[in-house]
Amino acid sequence: MSKPAIPQGTRDYSPEVVRKRRYILDTLKGIFELYGFQPLETPAMENLTTLTGKYGEEGDRLIFKILNNGLHEIKKEADKAKLSAEWEKVLSKAYSSPLVTERALRYDLTIPFARYVVMHQNELAFPFRRYQMQPVWRADRPQKGRYREFWQCDADVVGSTSLINEAELLCIYSQAFTHLGLPVAIKINSRKLLQGLSEICGYPEKMMDITIAMDKLDKIGWSGVATELQNRGIDEAGTSLLQQAIDITGTNDEKLAAYYALMADSPSGKAGVEEIRNSLEYYASLWDGAGNTISVDVDISLARGLNYYTGVIVEVVCTNPQVKMGSIGGGGRYDDLTGLFGLKGLSGVGISFGVDRIYDIMDELRLFPQQVSVSAKVIILNFGGENELYALDVLKQCRAAGVAAEIYPDAAKFDKQMKYANKREVAYVLLPGDEERQTNSVSIKNFITGEQKKMTIADAIDLLNG
Amino acid sequence: MSKPAIPQGTRDYSPEVVRKRRYILDTLKGIFELYGFQPLETPAMENLTTLTGKYGEEGDRLIFKILNNGLHEIKKEADKAKLSAEWEKVLSKAYSSPLVTERALRYDLTIPFARYVVMHQNELAFPFRRYQMQPVWRADRPQKGRYREFWQCDADVVGSTSLINEAELLCIYSQAFTHLGLPVAIKINSRKLLQGLSEICGYPEKMMDITIAMDKLDKIGWSGVATELQNRGIDEAGTSLLQQAIDITGTNDEKLAAYYALMADSPSGKAGVEEIRNSLEYYASLWDGAGNTISVDVDISLARGLNYYTGVIVEVVCTNPQVKMGSIGGGGRYDDLTGLFGLKGLSGVGISFGVDRIYDIMDELRLFPQQVSVSAKVIILNFGGENELYALDVLKQCRAAGVAAEIYPDAAKFDKQMKYANKREVAYVLLPGDEERQTNSVSIKNFITGEQKKMTIADAIDLLNG
Repeated sequence: MSKPAIPQGTRDYSPEVVRKRRYILDTLKGIFELYGFQPLETPAMENLTTLTGKYGEEGDRLIFKILNNGLHEIKKEADKAKLSAEWEKVLSKAYSSPLVTERALRYDLTIPFARYVVMHQNELAFPFRRYQMQPVWRADRPQKGRYREFWQCDADVVGSTSLINEAELLCIYSQAFTHLGLPVAIKINSRKLLQGLSEICGYPEKMMDITIAMDKLDKIGWSGVATELQNRGIDEAGTSLLQQAIDITGTNDEKLAAYYALMADSPSGKAGVEEIRNSLEYYASLWDGAGNTISVDVDISLARGLNYYTGVIVEVVCTNPQVKMGSIGGGGRYDDLTGLFGLKGLSGVGISFGVDRIYDIMDELRLFPQQVSVSAKVIILNFGGENELYALDVLKQCRAAGVAAEIYPDAAKFDKQMKYANKREVAYVLLPGDEERQTNSVSIKNFITGEQKKMTIADAIDLLNG
Repeated sequence: MSKPAIPQGTRDYSPEVVRKRRYILDTLKGIFELYGFQPLETPAMENLTTLTGKYGEEGDRLIFKILNNGLHEIKKEADKAKLSAEWEKVLSKAYSSPLVTERALRYDLTIPFARYVVMHQNELAFPFRRYQMQPVWRADRPQKGRYREFWQCDADVVGSTSLINEAELLCIYSQAFTHLGLPVAIKINSRKLLQGLSEICGYPEKMMDITIAMDKLDKIGWSGVATELQNRGIDEAGTSLLQQAIDITGTNDEKLAAYYALMADSPSGKAGVEEIRNSLEYYASLWDGAGNTISVDVDISLARGLNYYTGVIVEVVCTNPQVKMGSIGGGGRYDDLTGLFGLKGLSGVGISFGVDRIYDIMDELRLFPQQVSVSAKVIILNFGGENELYALDVLKQCRAAGVAAEIYPDAAKFDKQMKYANKREVAYVLLPGDEERQTNSVSIKNFITGEQKKMTIADAIDLLNG
């Protein structure tokens, strides 16, 4: 028998980890509900045709495909020959034959959401505000912080072009990270402003080239970006104009005023500045920023990789200097996501939380409240015979009063039971022995102070509930 | 573009369904925690070798296998030829080649749990009490009530032979179904008693044959069972003895006494009776049955299909006469589950909740509390311009007071906004117009009574929170 293992890039979540992850997910869920967003869950398996071609060539390669079932039950020789021919194609290129595989694992939450909206367009009340928290799977090479199964957590609004939606999503970020105790900065930009930049430097068709280069500013500095711009065919005048844009500093208002002046000849660029400005104004009306640790900063170098974004884009980074981690959230407006499935003209805007990275940071900075990882509050020791029945009665009373409690199920040796209680890290142990049973009381031991006291069951329950 | 769809046998859970499902899952979670059980989550993908051979031949057929990634990137001709040979084997029998597929989707929660315990045996505190609520996948033919992706919800204790564990699990069933408002009967039996039955009729080696036949009593009646017993080679004397056992009626105590007498010559049978009796005694000590709708009934015809059970077995059925549905839960003791992965001698006992069936019954009987399906409590209408900013301020105050609220993001026509609010089924709508803004108040409309009143923002929030 080989030693049992789990697939590379996947994880078991042990009890303590489940509890900490739940703390994050429950926090987000509570905030989404407070903001009137509605929960959606889609199946882990999607039709392969729903997914292929939506994530670029690299994405297609990373989709986990499910082998069709019952292949060995196919009887006709002609059908088998057909299957084998298909198999050769599977081997020869990144080709998916519906005869071999017609289902795949969810790759993100955005495409299933778009598919759901199109399928249910006649029942839904628009604007439709939904949140979704589920695992996704990618056949990426596993490495530190990158898994083959990981959770995404998205909130989107479709069917409204109002920038109040952008502001609401910024508020959700602010409220969530404030609640979690994580100091963050939210960067904001607009694809229209990036389009404007490419127009004013004379390369309106090179918006993606320019933004991809500028997005690397943090990593490679301006000289690196300048080289990359050159390689992508931007001339010196254009590069110099971009440097001028990047060099603009000041408050958000000052930066937006300067960008607006720079965009004098670009309607798109001016529209981009306006939509950032209006989003921030709505956000200021809606978010009470007093004393919080969230800053929202206009950042013209922010690009966001996904090319379906068309308006405001945002990204969240942790500002604690101890933390070396990329973005822990991001999103933006897309004008035509459901168009992929035949429903045109429905504008949407959404954000995503990087739950795994948020978990890693919070764990590193010890930000989880201590009670999160606690399970049962008390373990009742089992001294057997009549004392065992008395212990069951005490247990019943604890639970009836809402105290999470368990009994050691076997009348094992005292040391063994105490060792178990210690390993479970409970706050208290109850010791119902002969004397306690005869006086209808319990001895209660505080596992942190080591103090032990005898008291009535009712008093013990008050203490445990306190 | 083809019309988007989801794979056969899978489901999207719309917001209302997610909320109702959460009500069930949160209820169970709360009870598991109250009983000191700890949460575990395992990956959706397991190594195929972990799963194959654990669920019988039929089970192996129903496992969803994941195609290995990067097959088309294999360059060496020899490797390709090997792969094609493997493919022929995949076609010719229910054969899994690690070259073609080495991962599969979780088929149940029990095997991953056993695998986890073996992998983490040195860190865990035994007895280890865990619960797990996750989806599983089976390539079964979809039909009403049977899905290819569905949720399981299990609680198990490993590392203790005490029958207190059986009693605790019975209590969890009782508390869960009482809380959910579902009237149920829990049937209890023991594999040892079934072994005893086969011994006293003279066929100690035919325990499975006899139990499979007797398990059909509800469906085909005694004459059908008698025929099946004959077909399985049980003689008339044996059949008559089994009939005698089945005909025993009375209270649990009376039945157990009669079974004990019947088992006079079978140590195994007597042990079975004893373990049922002791489990019920512990249960009586632990569960406060006053006024509840749960009965626990000894039922010697109960078999439970899975052949890893070795001791007490249980099954839950809904007793509402409107409900035509098989079991909605079941479980039992297994003496050597982790032995499959090389860890011998660890006894376990567990139960499972059929979440999908519980959902269907509760939906049919309208047992979900009304507030479960409610999302935002109030929608704030948007009259544009200055009123929009005032509406954002009202919205901010609602949320700060914990009222789930949303604003209609666009200053659309009044009728359109009201139609949206109506479709969302909110309790209240706030109408912050010129007059309200100038007097720092809101008009609040009750969507059920139709009544509309003007009041201060603070009073409106009190009303919404009431």
